[in-house]
Amino acid sequence: MTVSYDSESFYSGLVEHGLIIPGEVKGAYGRSRVFEDILQRFNDLVSRTAEPDNAEEMTFPPILPRALVEKVGYMDNFPQLAGSVHSFSGNDAKARELSARIHGGERWEALLNPTEVMLTPAACYPVYPTFSGLLPNGGRLVTVLGWVYRHEPSDEPTRLQSFRMREFIRVGKPDVVVAWRDAWLQRGLDLLRGLGLPAESDVASDPFFGRVGKMMAANQMDQRLKFEILVPVISLEKPTAICSFNWHQDHFSAKFGIRNADESVAHTACLGFGLERVTLALIKAHGFNPETWPDAVRAQLWT
Amino acid sequence: MTVSYDSESFYSGLVEHGLIIPGEVKGAYGRSRVFEDILQRFNDLVSRTAEPDNAEEMTFPPILPRALVEKVGYMDNFPQLAGSVHSFSGNDAKARELSARIHGGERWEALLNPTEVMLTPAACYPVYPTFSGLLPNGGRLVTVLGWVYRHEPSDEPTRLQSFRMREFIRVGKPDVVVAWRDAWLQRGLDLLRGLGLPAESDVASDPFFGRVGKMMAANQMDQRLKFEILVPVISLEKPTAICSFNWHQDHFSAKFGIRNADESVAHTACLGFGLERVTLALIKAHGFNPETWPDAVRAQLWT
Repeated sequence: MTVSYDSESFYSGLVEHGLIIPGEVKGAYGRSRVFEDILQRFNDLVSRTAEPDNAEEMTFPPILPRALVEKVGYMDNFPQLAGSVHSFSGNDAKARELSARIHGGERWEALLNPTEVMLTPAACYPVYPTFSGLLPNGGRLVTVLGWVYRHEPSDEPTRLQSFRMREFIRVGKPDVVVAWRDAWLQRGLDLLRGLGLPAESDVASDPFFGRVGKMMAANQMDQRLKFEILVPVISLEKPTAICSFNWHQDHFSAKFGIRNADESVAHTACLGFGLERVTLALIKAHGFNPETWPDAVRAQLWT
Repeated sequence: MTVSYDSESFYSGLVEHGLIIPGEVKGAYGRSRVFEDILQRFNDLVSRTAEPDNAEEMTFPPILPRALVEKVGYMDNFPQLAGSVHSFSGNDAKARELSARIHGGERWEALLNPTEVMLTPAACYPVYPTFSGLLPNGGRLVTVLGWVYRHEPSDEPTRLQSFRMREFIRVGKPDVVVAWRDAWLQRGLDLLRGLGLPAESDVASDPFFGRVGKMMAANQMDQRLKFEILVPVISLEKPTAICSFNWHQDHFSAKFGIRNADESVAHTACLGFGLERVTLALIKAHGFNPETWPDAVRAQLWT
């Protein structure tokens, strides 16, 4: 069977089979029961795979402190992807003006003020401040599942403005952190290949903004700080990243004063499965109806 | 045993027992594994209770179209609670200015532009547009679990800026919708009382903005359009709403052109459990350690 790779026909197939619920805004469609079931089952499989590691589980809302986004330098590097939350704090007269503008079809957002929060750009960000200070011997390992926001509206069904990342975050001595990242890179490949996905890993870079950003991305590649696991979903030539691995060295540790038990500066690394993307990769590989997926795949997800 | 009701000591108890993870921003703390486990188990109990109704399941991200928020009149009624998402769309020079402002400790949000999305103010909002047109005989019933945003920063642990609502949305003929709402009001009371919560229902109103809002709230009470189920969590005198019921009459149906199979204008109603609030009410009623909760409660949650 020849599989064709085409973003538009994949999107319309997802809609026709009732897997996604189209909306007015690009990259913000709804998910059906069947879509969610695949996503949750995959997340459960990740949990079972990681169970021996005994990661601490944390859950954060899809917002985080504005001061945290400023502190980690996100606005220097990815301002084009950020989501800043603004609200109304005026009086009755100003509220009437707000309503009048909306009903008159005029823009009204200038009447708002920035709040103390922004949308979470990466599910691991709220975790780093909790590491502040002296770590226990051996460091720490945390797992989170969170909604993240990236302002990159697109018709391409794997490029969402709002999606879920299942992440693991390791903090400790540099050699421990790198060995953990390397082990998970292989574990991630095994896990995804075991589900019949033609997964490959590669060195990668983040979408840093602008001209300076191009140099930062090149530097990130040179230092092999970021890896991705990729699977063809909407294109054979440009496979989609469904899992990514970031070694931050002392980026977060320096900002949040994270030290190993022996007072040395800790390193951090994280890995994240893009849960919607994994779901879409599975649908692309095995078809729009999960009941017809290969038994070997179904047995792992619907245990 | 005398239970004391005090917001501060409840909050510090939650922190000390590792149930919540404090953060820099009011109403945006993290949740621990144990907190999440209670929340998910309660949500599962709701699912089992509602199973015979065969609701369609949908999942939406924590953002929704700005045009939808405008259309339903949210900015006319609750502008003080809204979350508008703004991002950066400038060039290299403007990005340098943005960075310079942040590092200089100046405000920088004026350099952003409104995006096409806002934070979801109520988990049911994205559902109504999917009802547009002619309904099947008997109408429809949908359930969602979604993160919602309300800009009301508070130290009080049950008042969160970002939290999850498990909602059911019914659309159909007015008498069918009202009967459904009435039945769920009793079902909700039974469910919550069955978990040992001293739950009571009452007529209620939404926090409409400003002077005109006071009249709208009074009118909503008069017409008995909103009910809440309340439980004392941080105060005996002012119990906390943990479940709410809204009968919208034709508010959404008129805006989205939702008609019954016989072409009459449909009515809608929804009910929502505030999942963090139910979790906190259970902790308040039974203690900080779920392993010591009464067997009759545990048996329903940890089946």
